[in-house]
Amino acid sequence: MTEASVVETGDGVSEAGETFPLPYTLAVDAMGGDNAPDIVLAGLEIAAIRHPESRMLLVGDEAVLKEGLKRFPKAASICTIRHTPDSIPMDMKPTAALRVRHSSMRLCMEAVASGEACGVVSAGNSGAMLALAKIIVKVLPGISRPAMTAVQPSARGDVVMLDLGANIACDARNLVEFAIMGEAFAQAALSLESPTIGLLNVGAEELKGDERLRQAAEKLRDSVLSDRFVGFVEGHDITGGRTDVVVTDGFTGNVALKTGEGALKLAFGLLKNVFQTNFVTKLGYLLVKPGLERMREWIDPRRYNGAVFVGLNGVVVKSHGGADAEGFASAVDVAVDAVANDLNAKIRHRLEQLGMLQPAVGTKGSE
Amino acid sequence: MTEASVVETGDGVSEAGETFPLPYTLAVDAMGGDNAPDIVLAGLEIAAIRHPESRMLLVGDEAVLKEGLKRFPKAASICTIRHTPDSIPMDMKPTAALRVRHSSMRLCMEAVASGEACGVVSAGNSGAMLALAKIIVKVLPGISRPAMTAVQPSARGDVVMLDLGANIACDARNLVEFAIMGEAFAQAALSLESPTIGLLNVGAEELKGDERLRQAAEKLRDSVLSDRFVGFVEGHDITGGRTDVVVTDGFTGNVALKTGEGALKLAFGLLKNVFQTNFVTKLGYLLVKPGLERMREWIDPRRYNGAVFVGLNGVVVKSHGGADAEGFASAVDVAVDAVANDLNAKIRHRLEQLGMLQPAVGTKGSE
Repeated sequence: MTEASVVETGDGVSEAGETFPLPYTLAVDAMGGDNAPDIVLAGLEIAAIRHPESRMLLVGDEAVLKEGLKRFPKAASICTIRHTPDSIPMDMKPTAALRVRHSSMRLCMEAVASGEACGVVSAGNSGAMLALAKIIVKVLPGISRPAMTAVQPSARGDVVMLDLGANIACDARNLVEFAIMGEAFAQAALSLESPTIGLLNVGAEELKGDERLRQAAEKLRDSVLSDRFVGFVEGHDITGGRTDVVVTDGFTGNVALKTGEGALKLAFGLLKNVFQTNFVTKLGYLLVKPGLERMREWIDPRRYNGAVFVGLNGVVVKSHGGADAEGFASAVDVAVDAVANDLNAKIRHRLEQLGMLQPAVGTKGSE
Repeated sequence: MTEASVVETGDGVSEAGETFPLPYTLAVDAMGGDNAPDIVLAGLEIAAIRHPESRMLLVGDEAVLKEGLKRFPKAASICTIRHTPDSIPMDMKPTAALRVRHSSMRLCMEAVASGEACGVVSAGNSGAMLALAKIIVKVLPGISRPAMTAVQPSARGDVVMLDLGANIACDARNLVEFAIMGEAFAQAALSLESPTIGLLNVGAEELKGDERLRQAAEKLRDSVLSDRFVGFVEGHDITGGRTDVVVTDGFTGNVALKTGEGALKLAFGLLKNVFQTNFVTKLGYLLVKPGLERMREWIDPRRYNGAVFVGLNGVVVKSHGGADAEGFASAVDVAVDAVANDLNAKIRHRLEQLGMLQPAVGTKGSE
């Protein structure tokens, strides 16, 4: 295989137009995901074209990866292999996963912790990934719990939503932290100067929801984020794009994410039936095909693949376990964006402004 | 106005093909909703054509309603007016709403409690409606909390979802009760013999979610509902139609409902843009227009308007506050179906089988 030819100097320019030092390395868990390592390597082949300045520390079974990379020369040109025979099965419990000493996922996290890599991308077991990230990459000072964050399509452009499942139950402080991290994420990933923030609830009125939500809203109204915080938003406001950031607990966020995806899938399924009805409708399809494909591409879950566990001392990106090569490449895009736009520096800056750099007593690391 | 000419004998046939005694009366809150009473009267005009055997006890300001009914002769032919000058504003808190002694909504509930009407339909204030229903119509023995229930579109036909917002926080027993009521609702509203039931969670694996969900799942697996209960389902399973009934707490259900609706709206918005691009795409639109209109109609939120507060000693149906006449007529359809198919008898039967006819200690009526 071709080893990475390390670029010693020079600056890169991110999509957002910001500059960042080269080279930067991402640790990639080659053994995570339903179709690893094939999909990972095929995804890196796409990523190598999009981000030729990047370097990948590819962690997994060396023999398998060497053989596999022969089919992906562009990926090979940016990859260095780190061998380990161990990996974490998709259905292993986090507590068990922590005991796998030399798993590919763990070695990726260690590369971030040691500074060898700026971030990690894995399509592996989410629970294991969060547990390892907390222990090895470590939680940012001032943050009690990392949150799973991703970008979703809306009628008004992309929307940042968090938490998408890292924390099943959340208190008011967690939600405030999510708002801070969501704002930083929207600045980094969507290049928005002043992203607006909404707190997901069952109604927009101040009295709606539970005590926890009302407390979080009150804290946000009284904070330096007050001019960004628009109050409570509802389910339809996510795809309506009412705010740039939608904050919620991990249970609700996960359900909302999947329900929205499911509804879009339903719409496309019905649409397919409409076009396939007869000769006339098939002709109709041909007339609108280009626009329809752009539409499908625009709301394609693959394009939105790549959730970031925000609130950690490094960029940790989770690709969907069933993602294809295009999807995995999107997850790499997300990692590159977060590194290039220094997501964590933005979070730290806000925590400092909010006087939250010290964790609340009793909430640090609690789950 | 034309007073109802009461049919003394004879049987009706519901859409589900079951027979039920005539006449049956629904109490209709003429003053509830964003555009009351006009939309209510226009909705009843449609309902009168669909359900000529029904009788409506129309509660509200007599002078206004008499004048209004002049424009809706079919509605007038099935309506009897009960005068009251009071109504509950859409934004009034439930505690305040309970103190309005002669509100149109309260008189409707009283008509159900006295047996004068089998059910009530209102597009008014949801919180007030639930509070009044609990106090006046009363909760079924064995049920600790009524749940808001409605039918949603899916790829495999209609799906019953509950709770949609009546109970922000729920325990395991509440969720089990929702499953019982959801099953009965699916039998009554969808005419399904053996509806399948899923518990909404962040993953299908047994260990996912919180203790409350795992307990509810365990109880359902050990009950007479075990052959109907398929386990945990995820957000995308709602529109995927994996089960006929989806059970969740009122917070999650409300967010999921609105998120799904929002996503479908987004899809239609994008589709509109695709068709409006240029002359060619407009021609394409004309070729698929009939199918597209059927599709739009099929997933039209108006068609799914009408949520039932299940678990009460009567049929209590909430129409969306902003529903139009067609939407309000759908809510009347829902009430007619629930009455005709004796939804509550089905719930009582299951509660008896499950040995749950007595409420659990400490949970009766708790919120």
